[in-house]
Amino acid sequence: MARIDAVHTGLYRVPLPAVLTDSTHGAMSDFELITVRVQDADGAEGLGYTYTVNHGGSAVHAMIERDLAPVLTGQEADAVEACWQKMWWTLHYGGRGGHATSAISALDIALWDLKGRKAGLPLWRLFGGYDPAVPVYAGGIDLELPVARLLEQADDFRKQGFRAIKMKVGRPRLRDDVQRVAAMREHLGEDFPLMVDANMRWSADEALRAARALAPFDLVWIEEPTIPDDVAGHARIVSQGGQPVATGENLHTLYEFQQMIAAGGVTFPEPDVSNCGGYTVFRKICALAEAANLPVTSHGVHELTVHALAAAPHRSYMEAHGFGLDAYMLNPPLLPDDSAGGHVIAPERPGHGVDLDFDKLQAIRTPGTTGTVTA
Amino acid sequence: MARIDAVHTGLYRVPLPAVLTDSTHGAMSDFELITVRVQDADGAEGLGYTYTVNHGGSAVHAMIERDLAPVLTGQEADAVEACWQKMWWTLHYGGRGGHATSAISALDIALWDLKGRKAGLPLWRLFGGYDPAVPVYAGGIDLELPVARLLEQADDFRKQGFRAIKMKVGRPRLRDDVQRVAAMREHLGEDFPLMVDANMRWSADEALRAARALAPFDLVWIEEPTIPDDVAGHARIVSQGGQPVATGENLHTLYEFQQMIAAGGVTFPEPDVSNCGGYTVFRKICALAEAANLPVTSHGVHELTVHALAAAPHRSYMEAHGFGLDAYMLNPPLLPDDSAGGHVIAPERPGHGVDLDFDKLQAIRTPGTTGTVTA
Repeated sequence: MARIDAVHTGLYRVPLPAVLTDSTHGAMSDFELITVRVQDADGAEGLGYTYTVNHGGSAVHAMIERDLAPVLTGQEADAVEACWQKMWWTLHYGGRGGHATSAISALDIALWDLKGRKAGLPLWRLFGGYDPAVPVYAGGIDLELPVARLLEQADDFRKQGFRAIKMKVGRPRLRDDVQRVAAMREHLGEDFPLMVDANMRWSADEALRAARALAPFDLVWIEEPTIPDDVAGHARIVSQGGQPVATGENLHTLYEFQQMIAAGGVTFPEPDVSNCGGYTVFRKICALAEAANLPVTSHGVHELTVHALAAAPHRSYMEAHGFGLDAYMLNPPLLPDDSAGGHVIAPERPGHGVDLDFDKLQAIRTPGTTGTVTA
Repeated sequence: MARIDAVHTGLYRVPLPAVLTDSTHGAMSDFELITVRVQDADGAEGLGYTYTVNHGGSAVHAMIERDLAPVLTGQEADAVEACWQKMWWTLHYGGRGGHATSAISALDIALWDLKGRKAGLPLWRLFGGYDPAVPVYAGGIDLELPVARLLEQADDFRKQGFRAIKMKVGRPRLRDDVQRVAAMREHLGEDFPLMVDANMRWSADEALRAARALAPFDLVWIEEPTIPDDVAGHARIVSQGGQPVATGENLHTLYEFQQMIAAGGVTFPEPDVSNCGGYTVFRKICALAEAANLPVTSHGVHELTVHALAAAPHRSYMEAHGFGLDAYMLNPPLLPDDSAGGHVIAPERPGHGVDLDFDKLQAIRTPGTTGTVTA
């Protein structure tokens, strides 16, 4: 038990290995990384981070530095739930989700990391422990790739040990999607787990038409068929589309997940620990999903997520996509383990076990945006 | 028709005339004001602004300066809907409401103001026009006032010409709320319109208990009985509580209003034009409310809101609360007009007709946070 002494925060622009494109976000050449390090009065430290796609990073950084860190310093670091509530209500007016939950997520992750490090426990054990071997899929961001490159990318994923792959759909012509999915299914064989991701491109009825057209290819799920705001549309896609639906990377509160699940709008809830409110909320979403008998998947930052899913008995495939952060990590990348059936293995290092190379990050820091807030 | 040449933005901390308290936000001694001025290639200018309660202002300012203004410059100023969509999708990842819609609201308001000024029309006429005389109530932020002061405040409101008053409820003991409401009803007489506002303090069942206890006092509505995330709870309060319910100041998207209305969770939808997405979204919420046969009310910035409600045939009482901005306006304050039955009259000045005293605001500017983004 020790109070929070200081919060260090930084904003970085991390280049992507290649420009990525999906049906909604346009061209993505880099992403914004917002880091926090929470120090307690014992000198112990926890690390958290979140990211944005193209925009919003400086706002998240400002919330951490100006609004949340001043409220957290002096608080008991061990009381993560109490800290979470304080953060939520600090930013509630104008907040209630949005970028506020990304800011809260980074700090929540750091507080859990701190707790795990002090206890000498990896988070997946601290969270109760279930099975460190978590099934994983490679998420391709490949909407614009020609078919030949799409298949090559799949081969690369398989060489890296992945035994499940997700590809983008949502091209202007549905028959292009069908042709690309058919080529992938042919290439991968009939038993290989394949998912597709429409990045909110369709209306509910367009999604239903696509679901019917893609039915022959035995997909694990169709992801984000339409905008997350259309709860009734999701329910219709699930009930009439005849295919499992994943959604959640753009749902930012426990309540949004509750509403989507209660409406029957999702088969695979898909929270992102870095934007849904951190481990605190991710694990509550796991509880909602389990209570509704739904397998839970994830979005983004799999090196952090693996701990939550290794503690969730009904976890399904975890998403892995690089986003270029590997190059700034001091730990070995988290890759599928062939001897564990292509699952990734949650590490035994205390906390989440991720250490960033802050010296190397220095070179890509956004000018004037680092800061330390002390008690 | 002219392109957007420049966006000027500033962040200010506006002192409140007195420290305010409600059941959720704690003590409020000032509020953060974020301004934008949008200039087009003809040299014409539109003004917009938004505000936050205690926290989040620098994040809103950062979104405007770093993310939205660079996307808007060079766009056709007259195409407000197109600009709105561009802003929404720019901040969608991590956004979808939250502080992002406050940032979008400020810019949307400025674009509409610009359009109105160039057309030589006040916005309420540009929006279609219905009736410039809008009923209004005074919103007291008075949870901690002793009963004697509460009644004095009501007398002050009546002296200013108000013919409807809202008071806070949500004290730790319900019987205190009942006693205070009883005192107000006794003081004001049985025909005086009186509303109460719980600022999300209660659970659904606590709200139902309060609704029953307050039934004798013939309230116009009970506002924000519980958290806005609890849509099912709102529906239960409306259907079982026997009293009209207002909510919406903490709903930040068209979709959130749609869900609450579709669920039967609200009697008086209550958007805030400065955090729901600007006039563009406020007017769509009016359309939803009208289609559902619900009277629409409002929250905050009544000098801006009056134009939207003067164009809405099913408008109910507009909220007026000072928030201290009057002292920084170059225009006369918008007060009830005795000769118009205590309604406020939407002005005939082009645009929204509000001009801020930027020289005076200079003294309360947050250091280092003004900025100009040019095409």
